[in-house]
Amino acid sequence: MKKEKISNNVIRRLPRYLRRLDELTDAGVSRISSTELGQLLGFTPSQIRQDFNCFGEFGQQGYGYNVPALREQIAGILGMDRGYKAVLIGVGHIGRALIDNFCFSEWGINLVQAFDVDTDLIGKEFSGVHVSSVEDLTAYLKKNKVDIVVLAVPRDVALSTAEMLIDNGVHAIWNFTNVELVEPDSPVIVENVHFSDSLLALSYYVSDAYDSKKLKK
Amino acid sequence: MKKEKISNNVIRRLPRYLRRLDELTDAGVSRISSTELGQLLGFTPSQIRQDFNCFGEFGQQGYGYNVPALREQIAGILGMDRGYKAVLIGVGHIGRALIDNFCFSEWGINLVQAFDVDTDLIGKEFSGVHVSSVEDLTAYLKKNKVDIVVLAVPRDVALSTAEMLIDNGVHAIWNFTNVELVEPDSPVIVENVHFSDSLLALSYYVSDAYDSKKLKK
Repeated sequence: MKKEKISNNVIRRLPRYLRRLDELTDAGVSRISSTELGQLLGFTPSQIRQDFNCFGEFGQQGYGYNVPALREQIAGILGMDRGYKAVLIGVGHIGRALIDNFCFSEWGINLVQAFDVDTDLIGKEFSGVHVSSVEDLTAYLKKNKVDIVVLAVPRDVALSTAEMLIDNGVHAIWNFTNVELVEPDSPVIVENVHFSDSLLALSYYVSDAYDSKKLKK
Repeated sequence: MKKEKISNNVIRRLPRYLRRLDELTDAGVSRISSTELGQLLGFTPSQIRQDFNCFGEFGQQGYGYNVPALREQIAGILGMDRGYKAVLIGVGHIGRALIDNFCFSEWGINLVQAFDVDTDLIGKEFSGVHVSSVEDLTAYLKKNKVDIVVLAVPRDVALSTAEMLIDNGVHAIWNFTNVELVEPDSPVIVENVHFSDSLLALSYYVSDAYDSKKLKK
């Protein structure tokens, strides 16, 4: 596979391609043109061709893309075939939603363990994921290779928990705390799920639609 | 305020500016240069100046930006001062996390009511938000102006619920269902919080760091 530096915008689009390709596979579609794929996603065919050109050749001029092959390539680029191990810290509402309703394995990630401070939760198992005490986390991280930590602790302990994790060799955090965990130049990879950023973007689009009379106030 | 078409990339950056400006305000900082702001955010000063130029002049050459004024302008662009009303549908784990731990009012949004099918939840109140039966939703939407619907129902009823909402005049959905609700050309504004897209981007960055030896496997 040709590997060039892929822009963040392309990377952000890859999961959307992947989901559409999964839907197409489910619907029994095995070949699709960039025009058709573009219509499904709201992208222009040239944008799609440009995106896929970033990481090699998937299509054949005039024949369209082979859906399963393209899907497999994108999954590979995204690292879904690498068997990454994740642990979850914080089994509150968000943590439980992730354990119970979000299918990590569908995306190639093994959620192997959860940690919490709540003695009512410690020792329990949710959807096959065991909850251990955070007191055991340091020892766990020493013994086990963890690729991704899912951080879903309350805001007020977000920073201290992140510091502890980084001190113990964690290098990738999926951050649900709505707190900025590291400075921009940190070598730690932090992927933020900032609910507020998403809500404010929505608020902007609603305002724009009201102002342009696309929506009735 | 000058109003031009603002690109999606700029809109996505605005909430990040806003959060940093809030932090600066809390720290008592009232003026900041584009260089300093850029360091905090990991942007170049020229990118910052370019972003802010999209929607008017905030800074004065050589004097930097007035933090509270800039914050107020960005909040205005994002529609935070418009008193938008939101209702939540689905008081499961994600719904509860949003009600209890996410401060809608901090972002100018009033979460006025929640709806669920679970009779154990109907009639209850969480963090001041009353839970009604979804059976009352249609009547509620007829009587009350709702700017944003927060959709946190299970996957298998996501599409049918969205259809019902749109049939009843809902035009903006904050979507936590991990399901694509509308086609790209729909007039309905859907802001997706697709956890999988975020996780897969993280998975890509981790893979890239392993491959480039920035991280030890």
